[in-house]
Amino acid sequence: MSGSTFGELFRVTNFGESHGPAIGCVIDGCPPGMALNEADIQGDLDRRRPGTSRHVTQRNEADTVEILSGVYEGLTTGTPICLLIRNTDQRSRDYGNLLDTFRPGHADYTYWRKYGVRDPRGGGRSSARLTAPMVAAGAVARKWLREKHGTVFIGWMSALGDIDIPFESAGHIAHNPFFAPNASIVQRLEAHMDALRKAGDSCGARIEVRASGMPVGLGEPLFDKLDADIAYAMMGINAVKGVEIGAGFACVAARGSTFGDELLPDGFADNRAGGVLGGISTGQDLVVSIAIKPTSSIRTPRRSIDRDGAATTVETHGRHDPCVGIRATPIAEAMLALVVMDHALRHRAQNGDVALPLQALPAASAAG
Amino acid sequence: MSGSTFGELFRVTNFGESHGPAIGCVIDGCPPGMALNEADIQGDLDRRRPGTSRHVTQRNEADTVEILSGVYEGLTTGTPICLLIRNTDQRSRDYGNLLDTFRPGHADYTYWRKYGVRDPRGGGRSSARLTAPMVAAGAVARKWLREKHGTVFIGWMSALGDIDIPFESAGHIAHNPFFAPNASIVQRLEAHMDALRKAGDSCGARIEVRASGMPVGLGEPLFDKLDADIAYAMMGINAVKGVEIGAGFACVAARGSTFGDELLPDGFADNRAGGVLGGISTGQDLVVSIAIKPTSSIRTPRRSIDRDGAATTVETHGRHDPCVGIRATPIAEAMLALVVMDHALRHRAQNGDVALPLQALPAASAAG
Amino acid sequence: MSGSTFGELFRVTNFGESHGPAIGCVIDGCPPGMALNEADIQGDLDRRRPGTSRHVTQRNEADTVEILSGVYEGLTTGTPICLLIRNTDQRSRDYGNLLDTFRPGHADYTYWRKYGVRDPRGGGRSSARLTAPMVAAGAVARKWLREKHGTVFIGWMSALGDIDIPFESAGHIAHNPFFAPNASIVQRLEAHMDALRKAGDSCGARIEVRASGMPVGLGEPLFDKLDADIAYAMMGINAVKGVEIGAGFACVAARGSTFGDELLPDGFADNRAGGVLGGISTGQDLVVSIAIKPTSSIRTPRRSIDRDGAATTVETHGRHDPCVGIRATPIAEAMLALVVMDHALRHRAQNGDVALPLQALPAASAAG
Amino acid sequence: MSGSTFGELFRVTNFGESHGPAIGCVIDGCPPGMALNEADIQGDLDRRRPGTSRHVTQRNEADTVEILSGVYEGLTTGTPICLLIRNTDQRSRDYGNLLDTFRPGHADYTYWRKYGVRDPRGGGRSSARLTAPMVAAGAVARKWLREKHGTVFIGWMSALGDIDIPFESAGHIAHNPFFAPNASIVQRLEAHMDALRKAGDSCGARIEVRASGMPVGLGEPLFDKLDADIAYAMMGINAVKGVEIGAGFACVAARGSTFGDELLPDGFADNRAGGVLGGISTGQDLVVSIAIKPTSSIRTPRRSIDRDGAATTVETHGRHDPCVGIRATPIAEAMLALVVMDHALRHRAQNGDVALPLQALPAASAAG
Repeated sequence: MSGSTFGELFRVTNFGESHGPAIGCVIDGCPPGMALNEADIQGDLDRRRPGTSRHVTQRNEADTVEILSGVYEGLTTGTPICLLIRNTDQRSRDYGNLLDTFRPGHADYTYWRKYGVRDPRGGGRSSARLTAPMVAAGAVARKWLREKHGTVFIGWMSALGDIDIPFESAGHIAHNPFFAPNASIVQRLEAHMDALRKAGDSCGARIEVRASGMPVGLGEPLFDKLDADIAYAMMGINAVKGVEIGAGFACVAARGSTFGDELLPDGFADNRAGGVLGGISTGQDLVVSIAIKPTSSIRTPRRSIDRDGAATTVETHGRHDPCVGIRATPIAEAMLALVVMDHALRHRAQNGDVALPLQALPAASAAG
Repeated sequence: MSGSTFGELFRVTNFGESHGPAIGCVIDGCPPGMALNEADIQGDLDRRRPGTSRHVTQRNEADTVEILSGVYEGLTTGTPICLLIRNTDQRSRDYGNLLDTFRPGHADYTYWRKYGVRDPRGGGRSSARLTAPMVAAGAVARKWLREKHGTVFIGWMSALGDIDIPFESAGHIAHNPFFAPNASIVQRLEAHMDALRKAGDSCGARIEVRASGMPVGLGEPLFDKLDADIAYAMMGINAVKGVEIGAGFACVAARGSTFGDELLPDGFADNRAGGVLGGISTGQDLVVSIAIKPTSSIRTPRRSIDRDGAATTVETHGRHDPCVGIRATPIAEAMLALVVMDHALRHRAQNGDVALPLQALPAASAAG
Repeated sequence: MSGSTFGELFRVTNFGESHGPAIGCVIDGCPPGMALNEADIQGDLDRRRPGTSRHVTQRNEADTVEILSGVYEGLTTGTPICLLIRNTDQRSRDYGNLLDTFRPGHADYTYWRKYGVRDPRGGGRSSARLTAPMVAAGAVARKWLREKHGTVFIGWMSALGDIDIPFESAGHIAHNPFFAPNASIVQRLEAHMDALRKAGDSCGARIEVRASGMPVGLGEPLFDKLDADIAYAMMGINAVKGVEIGAGFACVAARGSTFGDELLPDGFADNRAGGVLGGISTGQDLVVSIAIKPTSSIRTPRRSIDRDGAATTVETHGRHDPCVGIRATPIAEAMLALVVMDHALRHRAQNGDVALPLQALPAASAAG
Repeated sequence: MSGSTFGELFRVTNFGESHGPAIGCVIDGCPPGMALNEADIQGDLDRRRPGTSRHVTQRNEADTVEILSGVYEGLTTGTPICLLIRNTDQRSRDYGNLLDTFRPGHADYTYWRKYGVRDPRGGGRSSARLTAPMVAAGAVARKWLREKHGTVFIGWMSALGDIDIPFESAGHIAHNPFFAPNASIVQRLEAHMDALRKAGDSCGARIEVRASGMPVGLGEPLFDKLDADIAYAMMGINAVKGVEIGAGFACVAARGSTFGDELLPDGFADNRAGGVLGGISTGQDLVVSIAIKPTSSIRTPRRSIDRDGAATTVETHGRHDPCVGIRATPIAEAMLALVVMDHALRHRAQNGDVALPLQALPAASAAG
């Protein structure tokens, strides 16, 4: 209720602060009997890890995950899985004086007004570091969905600041620090980031994330629509200011005579809906796009006030990502996987007995 | 869990189908002692009501609300408030043959795959008619927030199809059928809609909705961020494909040196954040924008398949809104109010004892 | 959250007051495709109905249920089922002066302190009349469980005041107004009640309720144990002061060497556990016993205070059950069915893939 | 949803197994600004700790608690509090062969049928060891309730096997290993336990637990009644088979003319209701009694079956409490505190504005 638990049936409870002794999560509701060990989780954590290129924060965290419960002799038992990640490189000294002022664009002011107290070390609870346990939990969901339904999740950067990144091939994504699906643009992205860093500035990014091999029928009508829960999950990622499903805002200027995806005997003719109709998955790819604002922690001085309301100036010299969007791709993948996982369990709870007519539709194709 | 309940502490459970005997909702958790009668609710329902201009569906529903419980001698008692709206103009005959095919862009196919059965009359549960009980519940939330905190909600259409609608004055909104905050553009909007209707086509729209007089400190960090819950609420409205908070997708191309709203002794210098930092309200206006797709039910023939998978064609001749965005403004206002209401109660549950330092900040001004 | 919704996946939201226009409930999460009409529900409602013998309240309510949603052409659609029961015999005049004082043993005082306002007509929300919608919802759960798993629910009165009622045969239960499983004792029970009524007094009762044909594996370990949720459901019934599972309080004086039910190749040797081990169903009968306190509304004068704290006396002359336990049997059955239903759905959400070893145990027999 | 989270607003998520690396919990929703450190928690943990007398299990666990998050410079911050307790004395070798058979009275059979896999080491997740994190979480709730409302919790053993333990003075409780409120009976209890241990047998117990200094108005009508949630909490404790509130089962034979607690100008005349009317606290002491079954793990051989269904015999030679009730008192206190804490927050969420009439009732006295 205080916002640290995600999901209804595959529930992930997140805890920790950026510079406390540890961060982690408890997954309750994981189906039993799935093979699981730390290596299944570490790969995704490593993709999100800081310090892997000069374009992200230089904080040096191994982000090594430890499974404290819920697994016996290599199999999930159906009981809560606690995943623990120790913080090893906190450097609290960078943040000591921040208790008296409020960094523009940060949660400092709102935490203070909400709680009366706050942990200023590295942003405390509001740090993007708290996405690490979600990536870990997402890895568990991804494994189950892949093995059970063949569902896979993939994301990429589609814009860095004002540079659009045309999609060329998913094969490129793993081979550059930006998760860019385009090899030829990488040099330009690097130059862009180097210039920003030199200027003590930051920029935004756009990330696209997809699920393919989707089961049909996931999502609850009315409020817990699949796309509504996706919007909730994505807008909850630090620094996200916009979410689109399928065609997104482009639908405003579209016409009904061409927009609604037609159905053909061999599947849907298009995927402007982004894989969801009436809040329920069609079996096509889920298509989601998010906007990430520029990092607020920059070297450039900005105007603020202190706790007495007097004018002051803030410069942030700690270790920060000059574009938080760069490491957002594995986070967005994980959050999408957690939404799909939760709805897969919810669906079979209520509709486990639904038997379709003998002549079922062909598998809907994703034409997005 | 099956998606018909909205909110955690101010919980609204919605029921009904477009052509069943009645629709309605149950509000559980309303604070006691608030004056409430049907007239407090009817006004917002009337703004959403069908049949009020030639540009919306001609279905003739009075949408008269009846309070069945939770109010005694004109005061809320703290027990569940059941609001009932009888359906009076169902015309089931329009929809009889739809059980065998799937309208493109509609939930027909997904409901069938999910449940094995479906109510085809007027879209059944997937009809936008089910937003009426939410507008009714929203009216209750709005009354409490206005009386307790001075919070008010206002929305308008900011684009109709490819026509951008510049904001002129909120005073115009109530005086045209489009909720346009601009008097001079109304004639152009009417011509646009007349042409669409003649062509048997439909278009999308963009709606902006705001809350002002916001309490500071609402929203839970990590998952139930205020903006995450807003995104969930908005994406759950029928036909919505995108949600933006504050600057939205424009943040991608922005720079950190100018994007983060500076704090000055007399308040925030700007409101690109849209009234939320770290998922918690700043006290500035909430600023939300949504994209609504073109109505899928159009006279123009479209390709589809029948339940045996064979190719067919669908034309829809019932009574439909040629732009569902036209009636979406009061719906978006209501959903935003429900989110804020829920978080107002959640906040005081945990933080009811927080006493700020004597020298509190000045009331943050909204400069958006 | 304000306590009007029961269950997690088969969720029943209850609304209404004793003397308002209507009471009812919304069931969200019912599996689709089950045949359902009002007659399936009315039978259980009739068993709970007032006015059916001289030993219960003479309030004359038909308790006719109307299905407002969630059923199409005789089948559940998976969407919310709203059940409405109009109040027809309210007689508010009996309760007018009760706003200024507090009936001993009643919720008058606590409602007033909690909410500051209260509906005094017939006990308002605290009336046992609000169990009627639960009996209706329970009928839906019972139908699904019977058809899907062969699970059936049966309850009886095992003590009326200080008269123990030995179990003879379930066949007797339907043939006397007390739900007594013993024909020869009925005359004595009637004499007991007649004497109480003459004396203007009331008495307590003990009810036993069982589920047989139970699936194995229902219930969540740790907190949502099947027996914990049963205790919650039973203690929530008006006037219940104690709950036992299986041997109940008799276990205190028992020895481990005889208490734990042994397992034999043809099933459990006994059922002291009441069908639950570690919070999870064994497949044996669920065995539950509850204690119901004497009706607090009696003609005999009792001391109380008024809202100014001054001493006063209260006599209650309205229509009341001289033993609320008499009509409690169908209520306890319904609540037990709702708990089992919810856990049946919860179980298959998480554990739908569990395949037991080829050599499964024989069906455990109930020897209780 | 899988049963590892307790509470709605003060939410405790429990994880771990008896012989895994660690057990613990995450508390979400704790009010901010409360002084908290490990010492505030350790005291209650020590009261529950194994190995403290010859009458309880000889497992040697320090049960040292570590606060991993949610506290900054000695104050709660309002963010999740993770409490970790390392397991140090696991001795898995005692339990190796238990995977193939089912101990009578244990959860072995039901876990296997539910999940298909299970962790047999020390009972795995079904071990009473998992109550330790609840005692830790309860200590946090107790501190807040004591400081905010003056509410305190106290429990004692009221029967050990067939020996009733008359209440003499709460002062005795801390000075014997049984939590007996009676000094003269301790020698008899010790002799009883010594004989049982010699016989390889076990016995049950009855525990009473009370809250005094209760706020008025806690509890939600209908389902989340305060007493219903107490019943849920208590029945969820390992080995509990019965729960009573106030007079409990004695109410069956009582008469209405004497049972309902009268109200006098200086408070309630009695407390047969146990501090709850209509599910809402009266301000009197909460009075709760629970029945705990005899330990199932005993040296005496008992009949069972193996996983192939063949007859076998089980003797349990590990380290076990010969009466699990002996250490249950601090557990029951903690669970009661968690229920009251949750409802304290829930109450002010909805009813924070309720202002009673000027002439309020005198503080209700507890006469139980």
